[in-house]
Amino acid sequence: MTTEQDVSEKRDTIFIGKKPIMAYVTSTLIQLANLPSVRIKARGMSIGRAVDVAQIISRKTENVGYTIGQIQIGSEALESQDGRTRNVSTIEIEVKRT
Amino acid sequence: MTTEQDVSEKRDTIFIGKKPIMAYVTSTLIQLANLPSVRIKARGMSIGRAVDVAQIISRKTENVGYTIGQIQIGSEALESQDGRTRNVSTIEIEVKRT
Repeated sequence: MTTEQDVSEKRDTIFIGKKPIMAYVTSTLIQLANLPSVRIKARGMSIGRAVDVAQIISRKTENVGYTIGQIQIGSEALESQDGRTRNVSTIEIEVKRT
Repeated sequence: MTTEQDVSEKRDTIFIGKKPIMAYVTSTLIQLANLPSVRIKARGMSIGRAVDVAQIISRKTENVGYTIGQIQIGSEALESQDGRTRNVSTIEIEVKRT
């Protein structure tokens, strides 16, 4: 039981993929109940969705008081199927308790 | 001539739309030749492309030294065709001379 809790406490990053957007909003809110700050990460086509998740949380929880913290962008080199290296953009948005 | 220059000098914001990505990279670089900092703005589906533009510029101009500055996210209320109000996420990325 303790080990399980330890693991979930360390999961301070939410990776945005292809699930419905509210699934990521829920995951982020659950993590924010335990942690002072959570990072929402995405790359490529999912970047817009990461911004949506952060915005939904900050809009809908104005009274509880979660706000957007640091935002970082970057790029990662990915090898595509034809063997060439492509750069894909990344974003990391911090959501934190005020 | 002076008036035209004044107008172009004030255009410190590049709005990302549906043109090929390198068109926005070029526009941003032209503005950065005249201004100390330029803001790349996008909303909705174009947010990922705004990050791409900023990343291409910071990666390809390492020696000249343009870097990513402040990044802000937000949302705007848009009225859709059926009359309902929808929120659309926005991003604003500052690119500046080092």
